[in-house]
Amino acid sequence: MGQKASPLSIGIAPMQPLRVGIAGLGTVGAAVLKLLDRQAAALALRYGRKIVVTGVSAKESRKERGLDVSRFAWFDDPAELAAADIDLFVELIGGAAGTALTAVERALSTGKSVVTANKALLARHGMRLAELAETKGVALGFEASVAGGIPIIKTLREALPGNSLSRVYGILNGTCNYILSRMEIEHLSFAECLAEAQRLGYAEADPSFDIGGEDTAHKLAILTSLAFGTRIDPDAIAIEGIKDISLADIEAASELGYRIKLLGVAERTSAGIEQRVHPTMVPRSSAIAQVMGVTNAVTIDADAVHELTLSGPGAGGLATASSVVADIVDIAKGARLPPFGLPVAALAPLEQAPLQMHEGGYYIRLSVYDRPGAAAAIAMRMAERSISLESIMQRRRPGERKPAAVPVVLITHATYEKLIREALAAVMADGFVAEPPQLIRIERE
Amino acid sequence: MGQKASPLSIGIAPMQPLRVGIAGLGTVGAAVLKLLDRQAAALALRYGRKIVVTGVSAKESRKERGLDVSRFAWFDDPAELAAADIDLFVELIGGAAGTALTAVERALSTGKSVVTANKALLARHGMRLAELAETKGVALGFEASVAGGIPIIKTLREALPGNSLSRVYGILNGTCNYILSRMEIEHLSFAECLAEAQRLGYAEADPSFDIGGEDTAHKLAILTSLAFGTRIDPDAIAIEGIKDISLADIEAASELGYRIKLLGVAERTSAGIEQRVHPTMVPRSSAIAQVMGVTNAVTIDADAVHELTLSGPGAGGLATASSVVADIVDIAKGARLPPFGLPVAALAPLEQAPLQMHEGGYYIRLSVYDRPGAAAAIAMRMAERSISLESIMQRRRPGERKPAAVPVVLITHATYEKLIREALAAVMADGFVAEPPQLIRIERE
Repeated sequence: MGQKASPLSIGIAPMQPLRVGIAGLGTVGAAVLKLLDRQAAALALRYGRKIVVTGVSAKESRKERGLDVSRFAWFDDPAELAAADIDLFVELIGGAAGTALTAVERALSTGKSVVTANKALLARHGMRLAELAETKGVALGFEASVAGGIPIIKTLREALPGNSLSRVYGILNGTCNYILSRMEIEHLSFAECLAEAQRLGYAEADPSFDIGGEDTAHKLAILTSLAFGTRIDPDAIAIEGIKDISLADIEAASELGYRIKLLGVAERTSAGIEQRVHPTMVPRSSAIAQVMGVTNAVTIDADAVHELTLSGPGAGGLATASSVVADIVDIAKGARLPPFGLPVAALAPLEQAPLQMHEGGYYIRLSVYDRPGAAAAIAMRMAERSISLESIMQRRRPGERKPAAVPVVLITHATYEKLIREALAAVMADGFVAEPPQLIRIERE
Repeated sequence: MGQKASPLSIGIAPMQPLRVGIAGLGTVGAAVLKLLDRQAAALALRYGRKIVVTGVSAKESRKERGLDVSRFAWFDDPAELAAADIDLFVELIGGAAGTALTAVERALSTGKSVVTANKALLARHGMRLAELAETKGVALGFEASVAGGIPIIKTLREALPGNSLSRVYGILNGTCNYILSRMEIEHLSFAECLAEAQRLGYAEADPSFDIGGEDTAHKLAILTSLAFGTRIDPDAIAIEGIKDISLADIEAASELGYRIKLLGVAERTSAGIEQRVHPTMVPRSSAIAQVMGVTNAVTIDADAVHELTLSGPGAGGLATASSVVADIVDIAKGARLPPFGLPVAALAPLEQAPLQMHEGGYYIRLSVYDRPGAAAAIAMRMAERSISLESIMQRRRPGERKPAAVPVVLITHATYEKLIREALAAVMADGFVAEPPQLIRIERE
């Protein structure tokens, strides 16, 4: 009896079903169909409205996907599906331009709501697409575009309206975190771990987009806009990837009480909004340091809640589909929030803080010729710029015979990027150093 | 120009302000007023609707609160404020009955939405209040009732509609987590850490509600309903507090690779829904084990997202107020979801899994007379019930002179509570044991 209560009886008028078109039937698309199928009855009961997939589009109609697509109207062209008789267009094609962009624009301009997992598209065209959605009075959902199954978009958009945010940062790329975790645990080189990640399907055949930091930057651009009420500016992000992280860095970090993570960091500073993607030293005892393997995590610093951390799966068909379905359901319930929290016209231009003004501690690994006065000269170059050292560690191993150059690792207290760069240039010019220095920023907790 | 865009220009019709009445002006109430004041302009811009506090109620009108309450209509009786000309009643009085219950019922039955931080009220009367809210077509928000500033209610209610949940568990009481953290870090007794927590304001003068596990149980009852779509049943929770946790247990846990946390756990099992609040051994490497001090954390096991963890401040005026404000803003935007995810009539009765059927590993600390055959007899009582041991550790310290009884710590593989209880009764009857055994359940990751 209880289970059969009609939505009518609790005062919610029955609504027309939400007609959904899905473009892109890869792992995520197939998982979305599976979850919607399975949850159909529960969702109708919960919200008094059916969600019905009416049309689909993909490159190949006859590919084996483990699901029967013959019950849906088939569209070879996703833009045609977008313009068809549907209420909501789900874009799972990918890519910052081309087919995906055309189809999403067509959907919005013909009055359909859109749900997408496409961070590249949003980082490049998010402002224009959000404006189009607002003009047409439709929704644009993109929970799945950042950190897979973690509800970070909803949290930033809806859960913290009483707060002023000062920083949002996180591990946003599972491939990089997997590689860095494996290097530490198995004492393997970057190249070995990358090859392993590719074998396991955690890294693409061309991994440059992940390991170069671009993927993290696209996600960070979206988070920054939501966190600070600013317009997206994907070109205002300083990006460094992880390919130059050596096992020596991983091990030195460990000895010094740190762990290396590829972080995306957006921070409000007196010089503007700082957006950075780079390998980062985080204290081993911090919550973010515990996040290993392909897991993602995002931490929000805000004045009322102080610190809030969400962690979970950053990728995978079902986890990403979970976020797509959450967006679909919100739209079925009638949610029509401004996609980036504020109306696009009210988003402030992003005032970029120059990286040279970045303030923080640094890890520096130098290859120093084993000559008298080398350490003193390095320390002096730092002192000249009021850079104070927390520690200096010479890493020659016991039993090693005297080499031409020895690794020296410095940890500085907080200083400015500009001063560190100047000091290192001076150290190089002094001629004590055999190779360009390794520099890794330390993120405070 | 951009900052001044009127909500009109983006197609959202301007709405009447949301008139809010706040009952209870303690730490949380004062913080809610502060956040609403500060965010007023931003919120109006974001949602095209002003939020205006029009009336307040508290025990003493003239108490110094660091804020000017003379601009609000004053009500000595919160129930009168609830019935006044407002749209939303915020209940921050506390207590499962009496004034709070009367006022909330009055508000709902006169067609006002309600936001409350009162877990005891919800655990006892949540079903009836939710039904009343549904009947009247108003909202009932309670994000602040569980885990302070962490948006766990929104996450369970809105972020996971594509998932089937199997377990939700967490550290839901900051006082207990603070005490257990301090015992481990400072090697202090329970009594010493409790006294310290009271001195610092982390524990009440009468701490029994926190350390006895009741507070955690109220919160768990709410989470269970949202996670599994079941009616709240606060009497179907097995509750053990932390007062019998000794430093010996904390230290043994540490040696064995565990940490002790007071967890609330709700799990779907073949025997029904298991709800437990008790000190728990969690692997030291798990995310939940990293949560120290007054921080709270909740982990959700669900089939599509696999595992999602949220951590943040579990208490404090501003953090709790952040959640109250989030609820107020959702209601200002028009959100009218069923308070417990499903219409009350559609919530299933909670089928309670008996604790005797609980399946898991156990930590057992025995005080064993130092006599030949004692260890063998204990091992046999376990083996008779097919309980297999992961480890057995005799904890006499080096240099200690031979005492009458020595501590023996056992870790079992997964078994049933019923079998463990029977085995321990047999061990007691054998006469080798000097004191009642200490039993702590191990929670799998």
